[in-house]
Amino acid sequence: MKALNMAMIGAGRMGQAHARVLAGLAECRVSRVIDTSADNARRVAEELGARASTLLEDALDDPAVDAVVVTTPTPTHADVVEAAARAGKAVFVEKPVADGLEAGRRVVQAVERAGVPCQVGFQRRYDPAYRRAKEMIERGELGRVEGFRAVGRDPHPPSLDFLKTSGGLLLDMGIHDLDAARFFVGEVAEVYAVGGTLIEPELRHYGLFDTAVATLRFEGGAVGTLEVALRTAYGYDIRTEVLGEKGRIHIERDRRPDLTLYDERGGNFDRPRNFEQRFPEAYAAEMVAFARNLHAGKPVTPDVRDAWYSLRLAKAAQHALETGQVVRVREFGGEL
Amino acid sequence: MKALNMAMIGAGRMGQAHARVLAGLAECRVSRVIDTSADNARRVAEELGARASTLLEDALDDPAVDAVVVTTPTPTHADVVEAAARAGKAVFVEKPVADGLEAGRRVVQAVERAGVPCQVGFQRRYDPAYRRAKEMIERGELGRVEGFRAVGRDPHPPSLDFLKTSGGLLLDMGIHDLDAARFFVGEVAEVYAVGGTLIEPELRHYGLFDTAVATLRFEGGAVGTLEVALRTAYGYDIRTEVLGEKGRIHIERDRRPDLTLYDERGGNFDRPRNFEQRFPEAYAAEMVAFARNLHAGKPVTPDVRDAWYSLRLAKAAQHALETGQVVRVREFGGEL
Amino acid sequence: MKALNMAMIGAGRMGQAHARVLAGLAECRVSRVIDTSADNARRVAEELGARASTLLEDALDDPAVDAVVVTTPTPTHADVVEAAARAGKAVFVEKPVADGLEAGRRVVQAVERAGVPCQVGFQRRYDPAYRRAKEMIERGELGRVEGFRAVGRDPHPPSLDFLKTSGGLLLDMGIHDLDAARFFVGEVAEVYAVGGTLIEPELRHYGLFDTAVATLRFEGGAVGTLEVALRTAYGYDIRTEVLGEKGRIHIERDRRPDLTLYDERGGNFDRPRNFEQRFPEAYAAEMVAFARNLHAGKPVTPDVRDAWYSLRLAKAAQHALETGQVVRVREFGGEL
Amino acid sequence: MKALNMAMIGAGRMGQAHARVLAGLAECRVSRVIDTSADNARRVAEELGARASTLLEDALDDPAVDAVVVTTPTPTHADVVEAAARAGKAVFVEKPVADGLEAGRRVVQAVERAGVPCQVGFQRRYDPAYRRAKEMIERGELGRVEGFRAVGRDPHPPSLDFLKTSGGLLLDMGIHDLDAARFFVGEVAEVYAVGGTLIEPELRHYGLFDTAVATLRFEGGAVGTLEVALRTAYGYDIRTEVLGEKGRIHIERDRRPDLTLYDERGGNFDRPRNFEQRFPEAYAAEMVAFARNLHAGKPVTPDVRDAWYSLRLAKAAQHALETGQVVRVREFGGEL
Repeated sequence: MKALNMAMIGAGRMGQAHARVLAGLAECRVSRVIDTSADNARRVAEELGARASTLLEDALDDPAVDAVVVTTPTPTHADVVEAAARAGKAVFVEKPVADGLEAGRRVVQAVERAGVPCQVGFQRRYDPAYRRAKEMIERGELGRVEGFRAVGRDPHPPSLDFLKTSGGLLLDMGIHDLDAARFFVGEVAEVYAVGGTLIEPELRHYGLFDTAVATLRFEGGAVGTLEVALRTAYGYDIRTEVLGEKGRIHIERDRRPDLTLYDERGGNFDRPRNFEQRFPEAYAAEMVAFARNLHAGKPVTPDVRDAWYSLRLAKAAQHALETGQVVRVREFGGEL
Repeated sequence: MKALNMAMIGAGRMGQAHARVLAGLAECRVSRVIDTSADNARRVAEELGARASTLLEDALDDPAVDAVVVTTPTPTHADVVEAAARAGKAVFVEKPVADGLEAGRRVVQAVERAGVPCQVGFQRRYDPAYRRAKEMIERGELGRVEGFRAVGRDPHPPSLDFLKTSGGLLLDMGIHDLDAARFFVGEVAEVYAVGGTLIEPELRHYGLFDTAVATLRFEGGAVGTLEVALRTAYGYDIRTEVLGEKGRIHIERDRRPDLTLYDERGGNFDRPRNFEQRFPEAYAAEMVAFARNLHAGKPVTPDVRDAWYSLRLAKAAQHALETGQVVRVREFGGEL
Repeated sequence: MKALNMAMIGAGRMGQAHARVLAGLAECRVSRVIDTSADNARRVAEELGARASTLLEDALDDPAVDAVVVTTPTPTHADVVEAAARAGKAVFVEKPVADGLEAGRRVVQAVERAGVPCQVGFQRRYDPAYRRAKEMIERGELGRVEGFRAVGRDPHPPSLDFLKTSGGLLLDMGIHDLDAARFFVGEVAEVYAVGGTLIEPELRHYGLFDTAVATLRFEGGAVGTLEVALRTAYGYDIRTEVLGEKGRIHIERDRRPDLTLYDERGGNFDRPRNFEQRFPEAYAAEMVAFARNLHAGKPVTPDVRDAWYSLRLAKAAQHALETGQVVRVREFGGEL
Repeated sequence: MKALNMAMIGAGRMGQAHARVLAGLAECRVSRVIDTSADNARRVAEELGARASTLLEDALDDPAVDAVVVTTPTPTHADVVEAAARAGKAVFVEKPVADGLEAGRRVVQAVERAGVPCQVGFQRRYDPAYRRAKEMIERGELGRVEGFRAVGRDPHPPSLDFLKTSGGLLLDMGIHDLDAARFFVGEVAEVYAVGGTLIEPELRHYGLFDTAVATLRFEGGAVGTLEVALRTAYGYDIRTEVLGEKGRIHIERDRRPDLTLYDERGGNFDRPRNFEQRFPEAYAAEMVAFARNLHAGKPVTPDVRDAWYSLRLAKAAQHALETGQVVRVREFGGEL
């Protein structure tokens, strides 16, 4: 299989993370890196042996470019994806697909109108444990699903600048857990959330939370909880549980590398400290799947339509957190 | 130290569980077993080498009896404890201290007026892991506490008869987790809960839930979640987590006995299947502490006053579950 | 059941450990404590509400005493057990049953001639995990047994005085693991061992080892390893594995209490630091079983005959360690 | 960095495993696949988009080929590596570097005379946990190293044909563990081993063992054990421990993927079932390191000289196993 010719649109934090992954994959070759910061673009391009530019058009007008990887700031996703779709490029776009439900609708329409494949970066769906869990649930190993629980805690908060435009804790971070809820259990009917500003007092001036918990009631009757925070002392804390009548699946990478040190303090083990340490296989696998499915003419997954519903759920949860109300998800933000 | 002379009041499920523990403790000697079922009383009495009776007075009028262990149905707790207190007996009473807040107030008043020691059966406070966690939190190893999480799942539902008088899922079962929340973090300001009747459809006719999740907002700002269910496929599932700025404590007995079988299915381990397998040390230790503190003239713990606040919190949570409202705990049920 | 009336013979380190256990058991009552050190005897006796003495006869001549618990130094075991057996007392004796094979034979003969029950303190056989493993092996869950592995590491060396009379590392410590080998797999045909004096250089002057590893070839064809050391930095390290054609059993208490602290260092858990923390259930259970079996007129286990074979194996292993030879166990020390 | 142009020499079991890894690496490009079986060569070549051939010369004479990956049967290693070295190709050769010590010497001389880089496939040295352990030991986190333990058990035996030419259990399989012993602790002074034919009775006709245990005495004074078997019921069992005065490092990938299923049997987790599931990162990392070090003109590791000493140790252990003698490693097989 010939390597997929890709342009990276965005060379910031997530762009650089994807670049590190793409650099090692035989299935993908990055030929162009675009960023409004010429410095960022050049630095990432050099690592990848690609050409740098500050102009989106340089990528979209290049007929050699098969696909774009969009990691620009969330508020720009809609415009960039629309332009790429119009240019006929396949698109991989980081979550969330857009910063608002209306913008998200626009993306879905643009992508579907152009008929281009568009995959959204919910990498957990490609993690070996999440995939195995999905298979087990589909095979009925849990019987009817009755409960769900997710924990998503980052090791330390991103910059205040980032936070101010991130859409809030349950949108920016919680969306991964809420997407997993939909992936494993199905659509959520109602969400309630409470939170606090316990970690970064300054966030209060901007109405932002750094800690939140939520309850979920699923349309199928199951109930669940969600715990999200912007900082832990102990690294990156991602746990997902699905409870059914026949058993419980618990997903957690608790030890990495596979080593325990026993010393005078007892047993000690290191843990994933950030998303790159927790999900290296998943970040690679989602790109390999994107490239292979494009190559084979198969649909990509999760697609923008699927991702829009995760966006709606995350928006609803964020609204619940901000208002203290129980939010009915179907009545929030309309439909696609 | 001479063994404490005890009378057991109640020889049902919990009475029998306590009897099995007391039978092996040098610190305690059960001389009388009282139960309205003469059969139950006789059976337990025989195992303990004690005298059986159906009359509470037989225990309360016996000057040799130093203390009573009350495991009668919850609605009778208040009357039995009041009578025992009036008779000057030290009291150990199973949780909850009463079935209602008003009855609970009566118990507190009776006990405090009589000046008798009265310990309530929140055995987790005597589990080695919970004790260690408490010490760590008090020593400041977590820094400021920001989060709490508890799971409490029974292996299978008790009888419908029991459930109908149990006061509801978050009272009967959740109270252990909510007591742990108070023990580790402090008082809860607000509680919200959602649940379902997923396990025992018949419970719906009685307005009972078998599955519930809740969010907690603590007075100190921390937030937390609670998950409770009446049945799992995999045994007794008790987990408690406390999250602070410096770290996280995770309490779980996941393997018992200390053995893993590796076979063609992979790794396999047994787990505690019920409360007696999860908390054998705690059930013994709470009784030994009761006996020793009586002997030494020291206060017992947790006392009825403490337990009343756990009762109020559990009642508030149950009210939230039944009404779908966010319940402010201090405005619920008044004060002692 | 009436508590068994016991006299403790020996109030040193192991005697005190047993006393702490016996103090809490309803099945046992210690009425006398004998030690050549009047101080030791008095201290332990006070804790137990027993009478202290320095004369063995005070216990053996007391008709109220049903059984003796012998924890005197190993070289005295034979004489004390013989005297107790002659006095018609039931005997619980710490391992090893004697310091030599000839002395061991004398004990077996004395006990069998007197017809008294005599249980030897291989407490692991009463640990819940070892018991479960034994059941699994007997039920055939492993199929044919092909391999064995044991680790036995103490947290820190005992005193030099103790070590000089202990009979050597593989006798004093290794005998627990070698008894487990016999318990799970069967008799050992050949043993080879190498060791070092890595921890306490002074031991070299006495020809003593503080670290050793061994290979075992069982009569049934299985092979195994043993690792023993007198000190770890990280507490008490006891692991036992049995490998069969259908699977592997791994026994280890790796976490105690049931709690993990996650902090900036990663995950951290405490471990059993000494034998009392690793085997509290086993030390209690072996005494309860002793008392109950005496009460019921049932045989005690492991008995002296069984224990003699563990002694022979340990002696053979120690000989292998000291000579560098492969030792055939049946040709070492004769038979009973 | 331009991808390294590689020819695969050998397209059997290990060749195919390497091909699967190389296919996904951007750093490597396989342009030729050589195997005496035209079918094997063609199949692997097709997957890699490479050219197939049955003639070694086709690879060695191709000036575009920078490096060869040698996975032919062990007895041919020496000739193939010699030819490749003479042709000036960089070489990656699977372990063991040769089937005998004399052949191994020839390889070392040929490689060193030609001045080509030659890396040997001890992939564990590239596993994240083994690398971390190495760093910890070098930083002194264990203090003086006193003990070592390795377990290496394959899920099921390879074909009898393979076994007959494999050089024996401790050479073919044990060499990985013995290389780890040298990597972590240093040179081994003496080895003793016992084994059996418990799994495949037919092996007895060929004087082959399927199960073995060994003791190691290191030149620095540490002692260790090794357990090797050709079959488990439960998958691929690789564990390595290093014990020092300050602590113990335990390396084990016990759960993969990162998921536990709790059901009516208790807790259940899957494990690595074969070397590809246990060491995917390591197999990729050793090739990436090979390519990068060639590109950067840095030495590769482990080199043939290093690998020759692991071969000598494995040969000595196999000799111990076959003769029942304690083998002094330095007196076995001479020096390089």
